[in-house]
Amino acid sequence: MLTLGLDIGGANTKLATADGSLARSFYAPLWKDRSALRKVLAAFCQSSPVSASNSVGVVMTAQLCDCFRTKSEGILHICSTVKSFFENARFFSTEGTFATAREVSEQSMRFDATNWLASAKFIAKAFKNAIFVDVGSTTTDIIPIVNGKVKAAKTDFERLKRKELIYEGVLRTNVSFLLREVSIESEKIGVSSEVFAITADAYLALGLISAEEYTCDTPDSGGGKTKEAALRRLSRVVCADLDELGVSAALSIAEQVKEAQVEHLKDALEEKSKKFRIKRVVSAGIGEFIVREAAEMLALDFTSIADIYGKAVSAVFPAFSVANLLAEEQECDVSMSEK
Amino acid sequence: MLTLGLDIGGANTKLATADGSLARSFYAPLWKDRSALRKVLAAFCQSSPVSASNSVGVVMTAQLCDCFRTKSEGILHICSTVKSFFENARFFSTEGTFATAREVSEQSMRFDATNWLASAKFIAKAFKNAIFVDVGSTTTDIIPIVNGKVKAAKTDFERLKRKELIYEGVLRTNVSFLLREVSIESEKIGVSSEVFAITADAYLALGLISAEEYTCDTPDSGGGKTKEAALRRLSRVVCADLDELGVSAALSIAEQVKEAQVEHLKDALEEKSKKFRIKRVVSAGIGEFIVREAAEMLALDFTSIADIYGKAVSAVFPAFSVANLLAEEQECDVSMSEK
Repeated sequence: MLTLGLDIGGANTKLATADGSLARSFYAPLWKDRSALRKVLAAFCQSSPVSASNSVGVVMTAQLCDCFRTKSEGILHICSTVKSFFENARFFSTEGTFATAREVSEQSMRFDATNWLASAKFIAKAFKNAIFVDVGSTTTDIIPIVNGKVKAAKTDFERLKRKELIYEGVLRTNVSFLLREVSIESEKIGVSSEVFAITADAYLALGLISAEEYTCDTPDSGGGKTKEAALRRLSRVVCADLDELGVSAALSIAEQVKEAQVEHLKDALEEKSKKFRIKRVVSAGIGEFIVREAAEMLALDFTSIADIYGKAVSAVFPAFSVANLLAEEQECDVSMSEK
Repeated sequence: MLTLGLDIGGANTKLATADGSLARSFYAPLWKDRSALRKVLAAFCQSSPVSASNSVGVVMTAQLCDCFRTKSEGILHICSTVKSFFENARFFSTEGTFATAREVSEQSMRFDATNWLASAKFIAKAFKNAIFVDVGSTTTDIIPIVNGKVKAAKTDFERLKRKELIYEGVLRTNVSFLLREVSIESEKIGVSSEVFAITADAYLALGLISAEEYTCDTPDSGGGKTKEAALRRLSRVVCADLDELGVSAALSIAEQVKEAQVEHLKDALEEKSKKFRIKRVVSAGIGEFIVREAAEMLALDFTSIADIYGKAVSAVFPAFSVANLLAEEQECDVSMSEK
């Protein structure tokens, strides 16, 4: 088995090999149940030709889940769970180096939320000046790369401040987080604060994702991943039945969701591109389609990771990147030791 | 047993007698499980001296829960559940009249979301010109009463448009619905779109509600209803641990939640008071404290239902109101038949 990369998020656990021949995302909501990670790794190990001694590079964001009292508690839980499957797992640090589980247990916060750093470090080898953007199910990373160096803050808190982290994605984000009001027939209407519809509903209704790509749960558990069910959920955002609101108004809510997300991306890209005089956006993630739109509005060059490595790799890009960074380091170690 | 009023919400089922000697709210999240209503009514009937033939007036909002495909489906479910406990239940309609379960089954949408109407009709007997405001766990009603007439739109959708319904409350509302950004040390910081903290956390942290008044679940299930746990949840809104953010910054997020809610209320009250030239606010609900603040900012006279009828009745005011409206109608019927 090739070197494996693992990206453990709060909602999804992503796996990829360094050559991209394997690139998969498993819906595993740790925020609901911390044992979800153990279950998904057990299922993966059973169905794949991996062994406990496999080379595995690991990045994580799931420590932020509120099933953990602190991020450190989450990091230690994730680290020990991974180690129980892969004894030689290597964890990617905020300094961009790999460390053992023992080092994680000693200084856990050095391993807090480094998935974007793995991607950016990997991208920086090919693109010396670019804004790297990864739009996932839940969050968006916007990382400037200048002269081959990653220019972003280290912690999520600092990245939120600098708009290097925008906590919205193209599947799980509550529509009412994006739109405090919606416009219908040029009237403004307040929205419900419940989780009645999510971004996946908007993009499913607009035909921008398929039912298979709607990989998270629907807000109305088991409510169906059809266009009609999505429109019904979008109607409820203004406390209406679909019959009451009408299909075209429900679709217009979906459009407004997309506009809001493109606008937020555009603002962040514009600021970074001006500040660092960068003209190129390189984008990964299942939400590449909104990045492309924002980049076009700003007349920035757009490079799609899906075009280069395929859609499956783009969707799990931090896992693919950390696998490659580890493979490279280990090759380097081997050639050093041969000298 | 006196005439009973039932107000069936998506998160809480509230009961009151016409004299206010009983006034209780039960946390019964129908949005998670529609059988919650049957369970709460069964428990109530077992522990109280009620009989199946008791006089019961009913209002409801739980039909909006997304466990129901449409509001009509929800209304029919609620109606038949109530009828299985109280055979003579009377349902309050959008015209302000009472009807039998049979009439509900024939024209269900006439019974959609009338709890605010029961309260406003009852208030209008004592206050001919007032803005009635009820701030609950989840939503806020802002209802103008002009010359003794209730001047509000009928449907939730129309009420959202006119700011007669603001879909936020003082317990269950996601902090990130209220604050797209928070200010910390005069810097703006984007927030996480997860449900990491709710308004109950803000008001618990500020000492404005007690642990006993925090009647809904915490977002981190079982995370504790202490001030420290609330501050920890508020810190997570900016992806930080409490240690990382610090207590005073976490408290400042709580302050900003309150400011946002007071501001939203103030905007709505200002518009209604100007439009109808009304100088008095009459407020019920567990969130009276923020209404008082908004009214004071606008120099409007403020009348507290808690001061008149007690805190317990104020917290379940639609249930108390519908019990009184039904009792009055039935007395009237009796005196008519005696003539």
